[in-house]
Amino acid sequence: MSYYTGRTMSSHGATWNRVPLNIGEVTLGEYLANTGRSLALAGKTHVIVDDRGIERMNLIARNSELAARFATGHFVELDRYDGHHEPGKESGYPAYLRAHGYDSARPWSDFVISVEDDRLQPHSGWKMRNVHWPARVAEQHSETAYMTDQAIRHIEHEGDTPWALHLSYVKPHWPYVAPRPYHNLYSLDQCLPLQRRHTELADAHPVLRAYREQEECANFAREEVSNKIRPVYQGLIQQIDDHLGRLFDTLEKLGRFDDTLIVFCADHGDFLGDHWLGEKELFYDTVQRVPMIVYDPSPRADGTRGTCEQRFMSNIDIVPTVLDALSLPGCNERIEGRSLLPLTRGEPVTDWREFVVSELDYSFRQARLTLGRQPGECRGWMVRNARWKYVHWLGYRPQLFDLASDPHEYADLGADREYEPIRQVMHRHLGEWMAESKTRVTLSDERVRETTNNHKSKGVFFGEW
Amino acid sequence: MSYYTGRTMSSHGATWNRVPLNIGEVTLGEYLANTGRSLALAGKTHVIVDDRGIERMNLIARNSELAARFATGHFVELDRYDGHHEPGKESGYPAYLRAHGYDSARPWSDFVISVEDDRLQPHSGWKMRNVHWPARVAEQHSETAYMTDQAIRHIEHEGDTPWALHLSYVKPHWPYVAPRPYHNLYSLDQCLPLQRRHTELADAHPVLRAYREQEECANFAREEVSNKIRPVYQGLIQQIDDHLGRLFDTLEKLGRFDDTLIVFCADHGDFLGDHWLGEKELFYDTVQRVPMIVYDPSPRADGTRGTCEQRFMSNIDIVPTVLDALSLPGCNERIEGRSLLPLTRGEPVTDWREFVVSELDYSFRQARLTLGRQPGECRGWMVRNARWKYVHWLGYRPQLFDLASDPHEYADLGADREYEPIRQVMHRHLGEWMAESKTRVTLSDERVRETTNNHKSKGVFFGEW
Repeated sequence: MSYYTGRTMSSHGATWNRVPLNIGEVTLGEYLANTGRSLALAGKTHVIVDDRGIERMNLIARNSELAARFATGHFVELDRYDGHHEPGKESGYPAYLRAHGYDSARPWSDFVISVEDDRLQPHSGWKMRNVHWPARVAEQHSETAYMTDQAIRHIEHEGDTPWALHLSYVKPHWPYVAPRPYHNLYSLDQCLPLQRRHTELADAHPVLRAYREQEECANFAREEVSNKIRPVYQGLIQQIDDHLGRLFDTLEKLGRFDDTLIVFCADHGDFLGDHWLGEKELFYDTVQRVPMIVYDPSPRADGTRGTCEQRFMSNIDIVPTVLDALSLPGCNERIEGRSLLPLTRGEPVTDWREFVVSELDYSFRQARLTLGRQPGECRGWMVRNARWKYVHWLGYRPQLFDLASDPHEYADLGADREYEPIRQVMHRHLGEWMAESKTRVTLSDERVRETTNNHKSKGVFFGEW
Repeated sequence: MSYYTGRTMSSHGATWNRVPLNIGEVTLGEYLANTGRSLALAGKTHVIVDDRGIERMNLIARNSELAARFATGHFVELDRYDGHHEPGKESGYPAYLRAHGYDSARPWSDFVISVEDDRLQPHSGWKMRNVHWPARVAEQHSETAYMTDQAIRHIEHEGDTPWALHLSYVKPHWPYVAPRPYHNLYSLDQCLPLQRRHTELADAHPVLRAYREQEECANFAREEVSNKIRPVYQGLIQQIDDHLGRLFDTLEKLGRFDDTLIVFCADHGDFLGDHWLGEKELFYDTVQRVPMIVYDPSPRADGTRGTCEQRFMSNIDIVPTVLDALSLPGCNERIEGRSLLPLTRGEPVTDWREFVVSELDYSFRQARLTLGRQPGECRGWMVRNARWKYVHWLGYRPQLFDLASDPHEYADLGADREYEPIRQVMHRHLGEWMAESKTRVTLSDERVRETTNNHKSKGVFFGEW
């Protein structure tokens, strides 16, 4: 929702998957609606309906078209597909699979996330022990191939009329199943080494201890598990890379590189055993430093092409970047991120952020029960600047890592007296960040300027002698 | 809006008069709608329409009844009256005045806030120099009398059927005009003494300096002004006290004291020259410590009747108090205040707040221009505990007052090195308060508990070996 609103989690309030975005929030699709371009979604999105908000607005009974648009984030669903369950009617993928010979009522479960062993016996890809075997779906019919096909067909169909496409791949992600040849394209020694030390387990932070008791972490703490998954994950990365190549060939063929802003990003990494963890939460770089590649078609960006920006980006920057690229109003009273185009265009920017913040609410996780906490008491904030990473937790001691001397974040200095001054500085940054959240979202800054000190023009004359 | 939502200004976002409340916020009227009681408003309210939110919801065209309810905070306007302008059609007061002999197209301007001197010459009550003269309206037809009449008539009419009434008096307030006999019922020596010292003007905080340049402050800095206004203001207090007596007589006569929760409060004080200031902003006790009287009809509250609670109340406590009194759902995922009923009922409460926070956004004031700041850069937060009052300002040094040694807040210790440890503690409280704001408003805590760690029940099996 931060990618969709340009606002922080604290501001938009969707603190977890399946937490509806308040109907008072505005998303990318709504910003782009009525700007003369088609809006399409292909793939995964976490937009869900704010049922109570919709009900408050009487929208179900009285305005079902608008209610439906809220349910899709104002995009048109070419093919909505989340890859966590057997797909339903929202996706054409099951019918596509059956049309290509995957004869099953549940082709996703039986072929896409199933594998077959040497003797052609099927096994579920939900079980990580099985994922060194290839998927039972052919690569050309796999999720990544299928969704790329949808995107290419749509882009070709739109031709030279303006469009915006949210193409959202599931993989790489669990179930960690790859089709041939990607299932064993890589060997373990070609993967990033495990980043963990036994010293991390001594005096571990209470929240980390609780996380490590969760099933996915307990399993990934075993080398047998991480050794099996990491090469497959690497294969899935290779697969999306190959299909993006197909997509970009299409864009090039159609001349779209001349007029299309492309933002490639990911919403989380995956520990795969780093720091004795699985899944994607907490604040280590493994899961926080996600891809962020911006292609700015403007010739003004030619000077920075192929370069790597070292300043801090955040997912809240994407909405303002898109609005800026289309010369749409910036909605500064609401949007908290900043356009990246001054950076892609090498313009002098002297006041870029010196630190970046990330947030977690673990209320929905087993860790909350382990720690005996209530919903709303389970929040954490990371503040990271060029050198330090600080984590503030409700109810627990902070964490601190010195990324200069400890780039892999093995030594938590959060309880070390010597570093109290550093923690205070970082904590103050967090306060600054909280204090700068955008709350007056119903009125533009321009309107504030116009009406500043204007009470006399409204016939109100207080304070006159 | 904090009185109406049970949420802080940072959370609900209505940072000033005329800033619409986001349509995603829920107000007292909406909480009480459909609970089997009539809802009525008599008097002043700052509810205005979130035009952009309404437009986003297509409510103007498609659902005008609901749009209208948002415009009144879901209350039925018996008589909406703000007392800052000549009233329009929203109030019956102009017609009432004309029916009682106040013959004018603008009876409010010509009679209610006009005064007459010894020679029966009229003068505008907007000019503070005139307000020692009596209003040209008779006391029985004055704003406070009229609105009390509306309330009494409504309460009598409702009889024993359940109702909720928001009775909102304008006075005491500018224009500081009182009808006979209240215009000179008090002499200056019966008023609270001016709380100001010349030492406050040396090295004053930049935001205070900017405020003191505003017209109302510059005028109230002159004793001639405060000496003239304070006795009239005291008279206006006496007047509302007298009319509340009439109201309570009615309640008593009808037996309503047996079944009616009464909350008497005010939304701001008035400096009237204290601290060389006029109007109602900033964080001095003069304007922050407002009346808060709760009458709880339950016999369980008999033990605390007539007592004065020393713990910190906040305006965000009123909505939860009302919901609690009516045994309605507490909406803990959204409401940030706490019910006061455990206190009125003398129940053991061990975790009551140790400090209270107040917020200011001065973007709409002349002070912003004086200081050369942009909208959104003009925020301040007060943190007050039993001993200290700390103010954090965006862009400026903090303020600090030691209320034990300096109860009238003359000595700002915000730049005094000796008090840095105190300021750090208070600043940390502010961070705690910010971190506990309610953001996940679309989903109840109960729902979080029900769905915690339930992914397997949804067919999602990540992390299994």
